[in-house]
Amino acid sequence: MAIKLYDLDVSGNCYKVRLLCALLNVPLDRVPVDFLAGAHKRSPLIDLNVFGQLPILEDGDLILRDSQAILIYIARKFGGESWLPTDAASMAIVTQWLMVAENEIARGPNDARLHDKFGDKLDIVVAREKAKRILTIMDEHLSSRQWLALDRPTIADIACMPYVALSWEGGIPLEPYPAVSAWIERIKKLPGFVSMPGI
Amino acid sequence: MAIKLYDLDVSGNCYKVRLLCALLNVPLDRVPVDFLAGAHKRSPLIDLNVFGQLPILEDGDLILRDSQAILIYIARKFGGESWLPTDAASMAIVTQWLMVAENEIARGPNDARLHDKFGDKLDIVVAREKAKRILTIMDEHLSSRQWLALDRPTIADIACMPYVALSWEGGIPLEPYPAVSAWIERIKKLPGFVSMPGI
Repeated sequence: MAIKLYDLDVSGNCYKVRLLCALLNVPLDRVPVDFLAGAHKRSPLIDLNVFGQLPILEDGDLILRDSQAILIYIARKFGGESWLPTDAASMAIVTQWLMVAENEIARGPNDARLHDKFGDKLDIVVAREKAKRILTIMDEHLSSRQWLALDRPTIADIACMPYVALSWEGGIPLEPYPAVSAWIERIKKLPGFVSMPGI
Repeated sequence: MAIKLYDLDVSGNCYKVRLLCALLNVPLDRVPVDFLAGAHKRSPLIDLNVFGQLPILEDGDLILRDSQAILIYIARKFGGESWLPTDAASMAIVTQWLMVAENEIARGPNDARLHDKFGDKLDIVVAREKAKRILTIMDEHLSSRQWLALDRPTIADIACMPYVALSWEGGIPLEPYPAVSAWIERIKKLPGFVSMPGI
């Protein structure tokens, strides 16, 4: 039985999961969620994820929430050592960037997009400041390397790319960040790449 | 040569690293950082961590930032399978809670404490709302189990405990959350436990 993904087309967090599965050739049973009607905040979905968020992954008896944790699951189950190595140093270096996706990118470009595109009430000035700060750091980092964490693509790149590539939907153009833009193009050329609305 | 930790006594993020190392009996060479003078924002520390944050871990040539990523490193290097198992499901379940530490706890009790104790300019009403929301979720979760992720303590517990136990420093008493309070006491009884100011 295929893994089930409770899914939303325009969610960068759901897209991360779809993208990694596409790159690894893992079939997904996608269940579209009526997000605008708040289906994720009610039974039965709230019983699967008390945080009331998407994505949710269901693999037999296992229910997982949080896109970064789901990437870890998919990478460990289907990706061998390539997308998330298990030696201490490599795993820590990859997860540093998963934390950037969960923290700096969420509070920056993701929050700015939530404000502009979905009308979330939050401080857009702070979100744009944080967005520019993390994009500056990433651009400097990527100016001397091809991928965020290791010498090959890992789930670090998959976790960080979507909301960075969607920055323009939060009023932050990527033109001032050429190394970030080149990195996004590099990811788009990976065999099996799939896109999402806005990318 | 011992692992070097660029450290701050009153930082819950630095404390996580000290606590896991104490529980695993890993010696640490602690380097106190003059945080009030902004030493973490200047050379040489900013060259080790461009994010300008603590903790920073140095193990030979390896430099790591982000407390959650550092916990993963210490657990993988010194903890065998016990504090961070490597099978796909267990690792994902543990990392779900590392992401709660990085996201909901950081935006909730940690931000509230940064405002009250260190004068950070942020929306304290939003931070306290988020704090109560995650504490309510954790209390419900812990009302039927001993540990956050698995049937034993893992780095999930180490990552989430400090800023939850420090909630009162951000104006959020823990009395309404008895299961959370009992869990903190359980952690305090682990062999080798060390504390920090405020806990």
